[in-house]
Amino acid sequence: MTQNSVKRMIQQYRCPIIVFAKKSINSRYFGLGSNCLLKLPYYKTINFVTLSNISSNMTRENVREKVALIGSGNWGTVISKIIGNNVMRYKEFHQEVKMWVFEEKVGGRNLTELINEKHENVKYLPGFPIPENVKALPDLSEVVRDATVLVFCIPHQFVPKTCDQLKGKINPKAKAISLVKGFETDETGIRPMSHAISESLNIPVCSLSGANIANEIAEEHFSETTIGYNNLEEGELFKKLFETKYFRVGIIDDVVGVQLCGALKNVIAIGAGFVDGLKLGENAKAAIIRIGFFEMKQFMKKFYGGIKDETFFESCGIADVIATCYGGRNRKVAEKFVTTGKSFDQLEEELLNGQKLQGTLTVKEIHRVLSSKGINDEFKLFTTIYRIAFEGLPPKSIVENID
Amino acid sequence: MTQNSVKRMIQQYRCPIIVFAKKSINSRYFGLGSNCLLKLPYYKTINFVTLSNISSNMTRENVREKVALIGSGNWGTVISKIIGNNVMRYKEFHQEVKMWVFEEKVGGRNLTELINEKHENVKYLPGFPIPENVKALPDLSEVVRDATVLVFCIPHQFVPKTCDQLKGKINPKAKAISLVKGFETDETGIRPMSHAISESLNIPVCSLSGANIANEIAEEHFSETTIGYNNLEEGELFKKLFETKYFRVGIIDDVVGVQLCGALKNVIAIGAGFVDGLKLGENAKAAIIRIGFFEMKQFMKKFYGGIKDETFFESCGIADVIATCYGGRNRKVAEKFVTTGKSFDQLEEELLNGQKLQGTLTVKEIHRVLSSKGINDEFKLFTTIYRIAFEGLPPKSIVENID
Repeated sequence: MTQNSVKRMIQQYRCPIIVFAKKSINSRYFGLGSNCLLKLPYYKTINFVTLSNISSNMTRENVREKVALIGSGNWGTVISKIIGNNVMRYKEFHQEVKMWVFEEKVGGRNLTELINEKHENVKYLPGFPIPENVKALPDLSEVVRDATVLVFCIPHQFVPKTCDQLKGKINPKAKAISLVKGFETDETGIRPMSHAISESLNIPVCSLSGANIANEIAEEHFSETTIGYNNLEEGELFKKLFETKYFRVGIIDDVVGVQLCGALKNVIAIGAGFVDGLKLGENAKAAIIRIGFFEMKQFMKKFYGGIKDETFFESCGIADVIATCYGGRNRKVAEKFVTTGKSFDQLEEELLNGQKLQGTLTVKEIHRVLSSKGINDEFKLFTTIYRIAFEGLPPKSIVENID
Repeated sequence: MTQNSVKRMIQQYRCPIIVFAKKSINSRYFGLGSNCLLKLPYYKTINFVTLSNISSNMTRENVREKVALIGSGNWGTVISKIIGNNVMRYKEFHQEVKMWVFEEKVGGRNLTELINEKHENVKYLPGFPIPENVKALPDLSEVVRDATVLVFCIPHQFVPKTCDQLKGKINPKAKAISLVKGFETDETGIRPMSHAISESLNIPVCSLSGANIANEIAEEHFSETTIGYNNLEEGELFKKLFETKYFRVGIIDDVVGVQLCGALKNVIAIGAGFVDGLKLGENAKAAIIRIGFFEMKQFMKKFYGGIKDETFFESCGIADVIATCYGGRNRKVAEKFVTTGKSFDQLEEELLNGQKLQGTLTVKEIHRVLSSKGINDEFKLFTTIYRIAFEGLPPKSIVENID
């Protein structure tokens, strides 16, 4: 956008000051600056579409964000409903969402065809309508072509391979948001999934996590969530993309904190499940949640200097810990571990239809990192949960090993 | 204790340094100093009893703490079991606990006689043994005579009258601990029960509160609690009096914070009960708990400058909020309020055998204070809970009125 075109705009709108968002001039946001404009109500605000129209070398089409949803499981499908509706509400977005579906046969037909025909994910979220502007596609390259916003919503073990497939195929100015739980580990520490995506694709990556049991959101029951952002503009754009009347979004500039909470809460839920299995009651469960929350905080701060205290009070923090410790499947399977005496492997097979439990993976990953650093003693609850789950320690140690 | 007797001790024990607790010389603790001694293991520690024996003008009897328990309801009776056992374990305490019982007839006999004969509170905690060294008495003056430690465990509305009766009858050097929930309010603000006791009797008062559903502790299920102290010596003495293998005590120098958490958590539980009644699920419940916890913190900090952030992470804070929002009776009655459409007054009558619900009283008290200061808008959830409970606002406003 040239100085002359700004001058023309000032004349046309008879406005003494036009406020642009930081970084907006010469970027594809050019003058949208909704956050700035909204926060300065006394200034003349300019409708984005009109504004794009007066810019001779821009069309409406190429300034709108095009959203690609990478993933279509239970949670991904709920998200497709939310963002499918939201792109139609706001002019910032192109009105189609392309959704990548790992192709599989359902009743002899392709899942993508069924989704596009019935507007329903008959396999992973039957009974809930998907907006018609969400288009299911089996080809990842086609999904991300021209997309400026990538929403990652796949199991964390698929992230590296998916990113490899995306290399060289995405808009270099795209930005992403990760709804992926979990992190990668090696002996030296942990790597959040946002980092894995960002480093692989060289784009900025935000994160979203919260007290978000998927089916409750599908039913439009009230829920909160948290978006961690790199810069405020991105945070507010993603808030627009995800917020609905029943799905309230808080934003905080702590990309890593938000997603690590989402992974670590499952460890606490395993502990809470042990307490449930032992029938120790509400006091003991609350105690384990309290101590687990404390260790989660310590763990995150030990491995990442920039984690904010406030993050733990957002939906991704204490609220998600609570929801998961009462309503999540990690809790449930851990309870069965105690009451049946079966191993987690066996229970996963029997109860989860071949899926892996995220919490037990995280328990192992954390233990590996703590052991390699020789700091298990600083995380007694996490260590005790590991030893009960995988080393035959009696479940009642969950309360006996606490100082 | 004279300088000469200290010299004699140093000679006798061949110890270069004897560590006394702060304030301990010339006090009735004289050299007990368990906290100091324990924290400095390289110094010679001296057995308290031996030490008291070598002091010519002291007997074992008059340096031991005599404990009086004021209250004998459900929670008081659980506490009588804990402290009755603990005074026998530690030489710091006289081995009898006098327990004040509001006399009433049970099956034609006095409750005190039944307790002393059966060692069981047949009315308020049937089926659980009370240690034989706990002596039930109907006369408050007799209970507190010579007591150096007063444990208050009565409903908060009885505190002023009870303190009036105690005036001039207690050891002026006594110290107290309040297990009382709730606080007093007027237009200018709130007064914690520890202040009410302390100002009335002119003695220091600690507080105890935590995720402590009484019957679970009676069954010796694992639980934590928090003691707020004025000075560390008192905190550690009370920790000894209350801590058992299944009832773990954390201590923190925040007398007001500990007890205000204990009162305010019931307000959040009413909100959680509304969510349960509306069947909104775990996400919504976790959201209300999160927001309630935030408002509890704001409220306390607004009315007391000295509240510590750490207090909210002790058992009295987040853990008690969680236990109460899942297992407490305030939650339960609030759920019924939604599902039956009956008033709280009616439900109290039907469900609580004439007792009053502490949470609804606190909801009213908080609303009164907030209204008088004109700051209801700063506490939207607390205000919404009040309006649903007492002004006919539809229960679903609990999630609709949130920003």
